[in-house]
Amino acid sequence: MPESPLPARPTLDDVRAAARRIEPFVHRTPIARCAAIDALAGGDVHLKCENLQKVGAFKARGAMNAVRLLDDETASRGVVTHSSGNHAQALAWAARSRDIPAHIVMPTTAPAVKRRAVEGYGGIVHDCEPTLADRLATCERVARETGGSIIPPYDDDRIIAGQGTLALELLGQVPDLEAVVVPVGGGGLISGVATVVKALAPQVRVIGAEPALADDAARSKAAGSIQPHAGDPTATIADGLRTTLGARTFPIIRELVDEIVTVDEAAIGRALRLVLERSKLVIEPSAAVGVAVATDPMFRTRGHRTIGVVLCGGNLDLARLPDLLG
Amino acid sequence: MPESPLPARPTLDDVRAAARRIEPFVHRTPIARCAAIDALAGGDVHLKCENLQKVGAFKARGAMNAVRLLDDETASRGVVTHSSGNHAQALAWAARSRDIPAHIVMPTTAPAVKRRAVEGYGGIVHDCEPTLADRLATCERVARETGGSIIPPYDDDRIIAGQGTLALELLGQVPDLEAVVVPVGGGGLISGVATVVKALAPQVRVIGAEPALADDAARSKAAGSIQPHAGDPTATIADGLRTTLGARTFPIIRELVDEIVTVDEAAIGRALRLVLERSKLVIEPSAAVGVAVATDPMFRTRGHRTIGVVLCGGNLDLARLPDLLG
Repeated sequence: MPESPLPARPTLDDVRAAARRIEPFVHRTPIARCAAIDALAGGDVHLKCENLQKVGAFKARGAMNAVRLLDDETASRGVVTHSSGNHAQALAWAARSRDIPAHIVMPTTAPAVKRRAVEGYGGIVHDCEPTLADRLATCERVARETGGSIIPPYDDDRIIAGQGTLALELLGQVPDLEAVVVPVGGGGLISGVATVVKALAPQVRVIGAEPALADDAARSKAAGSIQPHAGDPTATIADGLRTTLGARTFPIIRELVDEIVTVDEAAIGRALRLVLERSKLVIEPSAAVGVAVATDPMFRTRGHRTIGVVLCGGNLDLARLPDLLG
Repeated sequence: MPESPLPARPTLDDVRAAARRIEPFVHRTPIARCAAIDALAGGDVHLKCENLQKVGAFKARGAMNAVRLLDDETASRGVVTHSSGNHAQALAWAARSRDIPAHIVMPTTAPAVKRRAVEGYGGIVHDCEPTLADRLATCERVARETGGSIIPPYDDDRIIAGQGTLALELLGQVPDLEAVVVPVGGGGLISGVATVVKALAPQVRVIGAEPALADDAARSKAAGSIQPHAGDPTATIADGLRTTLGARTFPIIRELVDEIVTVDEAAIGRALRLVLERSKLVIEPSAAVGVAVATDPMFRTRGHRTIGVVLCGGNLDLARLPDLLG
């Protein structure tokens, strides 16, 4: 494959600057251990607990970094995004810390609980039709009308650098790390993690974890160019991972991520149950995808003795739990 | 109230010896914090995470202490108890660590999942009828036939001393503690905690937390003698707290515990949801009882600024969760 020139992208220094910037606001999340998971993985699994992060997900890191980077005048006009997931809550939370408005464009079909969560952090919800086209159009209209800055959920260097801060912590917490497993949706998290890991500890394998039903990263990595999902991403329980890679995240993943591993829905459900029952941690299904990879019998054969797994979020809908567990 | 002479009971030294004895086998469990709980409690709430303890409950401490205290010849004949709860799993787990048999008497009505959990730790399950009389009779028969030592779930000085070890940790982890809230079933946990706290930090208030439907400790403390539940203990979701105080635990509670606070089922359900959704920790309903007390508006008026709450266990039946949350 010919090398294509890469555009400038976030560096280790950008991540370090982000870490200093967001440090007063976010948690240095702990590492959890679980003998039952270790036994299945055949190694020491270190669970990086971003489910215990502010707003219950790593998204707090990137959103706070982006909000803090705005100059005062720009910031005063507020921030805008389209999301019904953790990025929406994270941006509302980050904006409130600066006392600026957060405009969140959300489809009318989003569950009321998601809307209330954003409003609970002081966000202003704007309705749109449940199509990507109307989400983008509404987002741009709101930004134009308010003068607010659009903060995308993942395809943005400020976001990538912010998410990467968890890898600085992880390398300090687990010095003998051999591999780190990171769930992949739009790729902001794994891009940031890979940027840090390959700069500081290039021998550590960076492995993406994806639902087989939302396998665009695996397919894109294999093809060397951005590919769509082969399956039906709306059918995976890992709703945080249904998005596709972006123009900023894909080149980083192509160059720095070692591999993307996919897992089926049954494995994701088993991993969710495993973490709830044995680690006693509440995670969302997207976080279970990483555990499903680390405990996959095929993965075990690689013989990694010390494995990091990012538990990316803990915003589990308890009412849906019986369905999620099958 | 006239002082009645107390029989000898576990001392701080007994608890310290237990801590040294069990230290290689149990976790020094972490403290979790949660801004949402702090806000409701009006103070800093430090959650002592015994849900992350071995076998998912503080019961590992007392069971291990009792098993380690047996001399080799006695131990070789095994241990016996009647329980379908966390003590059963804890005793099986502790016995396995010494490679001795654990005979667990369990009513035929106990859920299959409880039986499998005990068997998973290598315990031998003996059926009995679901009456206290047959539980006791079967337990004694098994002990007679095997020569095994009966290890009761709470009314035993070895158990009380073992459970108290968590308070040694808590006082080290939260030096400015003003009150500690401890769920009360048979009273083994709070007896051990009160023994330590009143010896080392007598200004710290020790507060029992009980479901209103299983309020024998509150009634017994008020009456100065062991009283039955006024409500129907089988109706509380906090199934670990349905038992009543014993001859060994009651005198300690009478003298050393400052107060027992009861909470209704709605408050327990709300606290369970609060911890799952906001702390991202899996706890069982019995552990929610302590959180329900700490976040009770009446309790808040007391103005404790630094409060410990023992999350006594994490063995939540996920299939029952929708019912538990109401």
